[in-house]
Amino acid sequence: VTPYEVIHRKRDGAELPAAELRAFLEGYGRGEVADYQMSAFLMAVFFRGLAQEELGAWTRGMLESGEVLDLSDIPGAKVDKHSTGGVGDKVSLCLAPLVAACGVRVPMISGRGLGHTGGTLDKLESIPGFRVDLSIAEYRKLVREVGACLIGQTATLAPADKRLYALRDVTATIECIPLIASSIMSKKLAEGIDALVLDVKVGSGAFMKREADARILAQTMIDIGTHFGRRVTALLTDMDQPLGRAVGNALEVEEAVAVLRGEGPTDVTEVTFALGAEMLVLGGAAGTAEAARSKLEEAVRAGTALAKLEEIVSRQGGDARVVRDGARLPRARLQHEVRARSAGFICAIDSEAVGLAGVALGAGRQRVDSAIDPAVGFELLKKIGDKAMVGEPLVRIHANDEARLPDIERRLAAAYALGPTAPRRRPLVLERLSE
Amino acid sequence: VTPYEVIHRKRDGAELPAAELRAFLEGYGRGEVADYQMSAFLMAVFFRGLAQEELGAWTRGMLESGEVLDLSDIPGAKVDKHSTGGVGDKVSLCLAPLVAACGVRVPMISGRGLGHTGGTLDKLESIPGFRVDLSIAEYRKLVREVGACLIGQTATLAPADKRLYALRDVTATIECIPLIASSIMSKKLAEGIDALVLDVKVGSGAFMKREADARILAQTMIDIGTHFGRRVTALLTDMDQPLGRAVGNALEVEEAVAVLRGEGPTDVTEVTFALGAEMLVLGGAAGTAEAARSKLEEAVRAGTALAKLEEIVSRQGGDARVVRDGARLPRARLQHEVRARSAGFICAIDSEAVGLAGVALGAGRQRVDSAIDPAVGFELLKKIGDKAMVGEPLVRIHANDEARLPDIERRLAAAYALGPTAPRRRPLVLERLSE
Repeated sequence: VTPYEVIHRKRDGAELPAAELRAFLEGYGRGEVADYQMSAFLMAVFFRGLAQEELGAWTRGMLESGEVLDLSDIPGAKVDKHSTGGVGDKVSLCLAPLVAACGVRVPMISGRGLGHTGGTLDKLESIPGFRVDLSIAEYRKLVREVGACLIGQTATLAPADKRLYALRDVTATIECIPLIASSIMSKKLAEGIDALVLDVKVGSGAFMKREADARILAQTMIDIGTHFGRRVTALLTDMDQPLGRAVGNALEVEEAVAVLRGEGPTDVTEVTFALGAEMLVLGGAAGTAEAARSKLEEAVRAGTALAKLEEIVSRQGGDARVVRDGARLPRARLQHEVRARSAGFICAIDSEAVGLAGVALGAGRQRVDSAIDPAVGFELLKKIGDKAMVGEPLVRIHANDEARLPDIERRLAAAYALGPTAPRRRPLVLERLSE
Repeated sequence: VTPYEVIHRKRDGAELPAAELRAFLEGYGRGEVADYQMSAFLMAVFFRGLAQEELGAWTRGMLESGEVLDLSDIPGAKVDKHSTGGVGDKVSLCLAPLVAACGVRVPMISGRGLGHTGGTLDKLESIPGFRVDLSIAEYRKLVREVGACLIGQTATLAPADKRLYALRDVTATIECIPLIASSIMSKKLAEGIDALVLDVKVGSGAFMKREADARILAQTMIDIGTHFGRRVTALLTDMDQPLGRAVGNALEVEEAVAVLRGEGPTDVTEVTFALGAEMLVLGGAAGTAEAARSKLEEAVRAGTALAKLEEIVSRQGGDARVVRDGARLPRARLQHEVRARSAGFICAIDSEAVGLAGVALGAGRQRVDSAIDPAVGFELLKKIGDKAMVGEPLVRIHANDEARLPDIERRLAAAYALGPTAPRRRPLVLERLSE
């Protein structure tokens, strides 16, 4: 079967045998399938989708294009969490130490900010000295000794996915559920995990704006997990407004610390606990979600979660004093408040716009090679359902460059919609899906 | 607007402004749009199509990527014919001299065989010495002095189309009506014609197997013609069996000569006259199709059409004696007859299979760089509706390589379907479309 035939048949809606998909992907790795053939194929997949068996074969092809870690020599269950990305989503920073403190190991390979969303690696790097580029050997050692380790994707894990992702990024084939699901799962399966909890974000700050799409994405990833004999649970969680109050790297680290101290915003705490409970159950550290939740609450109360964060930071080369002393984190020079021009209830926050304002401020990258300013970002002083008087502050901007303020202020003011009545409260956890 | 946005918006079904499509195509020409972006775009067009205005802009972009000939200094109307390709389609060889003999100039830029179909250039080159690679200056001179000239696409005419066609060929984006139509029309508009007659083939030997698709293709090309202020008429003609009896380059030249002598098979003659009448009307040489047909018949009877063919051959470097003496054309060493194994009426001929058997015999190219054997081919002794007794010959194979005969015979036998009753006669000209 030639590359041409593979493209042609997918284009016409055929279901391709696993061996053909595998050969196509391997041919791409060897340069026998050209970039222009792969991009035409990916666009055909955008329109035709991938059936269950195809999805398994495609994911396996990407997974086995590189090293597949085996952590089975490390005792106990290894459970990771993956978020599809949002604005103000610092949950990984809370969750890894919290779950590790409860006895379930968390081998976590995270990403950078993408588009309007933030990335765990960027947030961690706002901690002075923190290293996310550990070797696989160091990673194994920390998962064993500390119980959690947070690093970036190495060149050896799922390299085919890395190349395909870059191609999709410039050929408008990112927003395709089977391609998103197989990309995420190939990386996660390469980590050496036993089970996985997915946080599939839905709403204005998520890549999936509609709950129906998020549900299909979650189910697709669960199906892939099943195909590979891994237990996967997914929560669909609200991303119609930024999670918590902090948006921006150092600001989010500070808020994550607050969560572990039991003083964080309700929404971040709630999402952290809901995901953590799933991880403890999957990892066998609790029999029920209720028992798991008690364990998590106890880890916060007793301070073991906070101590675990200090241990992680210190073992990954960071200044662990930031955990007790937030002033050691980078701070922006300027603070500026965006004020309400009319009175009313906050009805909606365009969270993608907030995220993009953060990128414009320097909290994210405008280009692949842009530098990030770890100190800048926003504090959301009003969130959906809050009442604002005229002139009351909505958002506090933390900036280092005064010249950027007018544009950022304009963007944030436009992102807030005020109305005469409070909107109906939306639940934080919209839905739970499992195998 | 970035290349990414152009792909993204077409993918999502948007109608793109002419300026954006033009910029995208020009960016491709300059290397700023990568092959992998263009192929993803073309696949999106496969699924989303191109609206009327988009089609005009896309065609204009390809047309203006190279030289656009202006033949307005040559007196009289310039009218070309284009066939979408079939098996045994030697109509251009009959039509150019016939129409030129009736006073309408025919500037004809033709193609090579493609897939299972033959190509006018390959047929012409079976005439010893015939040159299809004339310069544009020579081409202009012959259109002026002889009234017809048949050459191949030069590197300067619609080069963007040439590059896109090669890309489509390896990314399974050939079979897409707006891309086919814009490709054909960009080349034809570059020729410097005033009007165009399209022969859109339908049936087992055509690229369009279904009349509905052929009609859409014809209408799409007419619309593009209108957009550029050119009059275009299209005939949908039958290609459910090879046209005439000869398939193969020199054999087809011989059959075309027979048509111009008034001794050709009825079907080739009929299609030639129907298309020729349209060309004379569009070129102003006749007021009605009936008047045009009388003129064409007179040109055959009086021998002026045959004399014009001799003039064309001779002025393009060929041995014009082949016109009066077919034995001067290349002849194959072997003749072998494929005989009926059962008695009955010929119900169907899989013409694509006949065309592919011709390619396998050496009458066409298996690879871009294959050499053609001009002498080999088939004579179809039985056609649809004919009765065959057991052992009666169906096809006479003209071959130079005995080793190939068993495979070719098997293919041809399988291409013929015999049944107990004669099928209903299908008209040769199925439909006429014009602006």
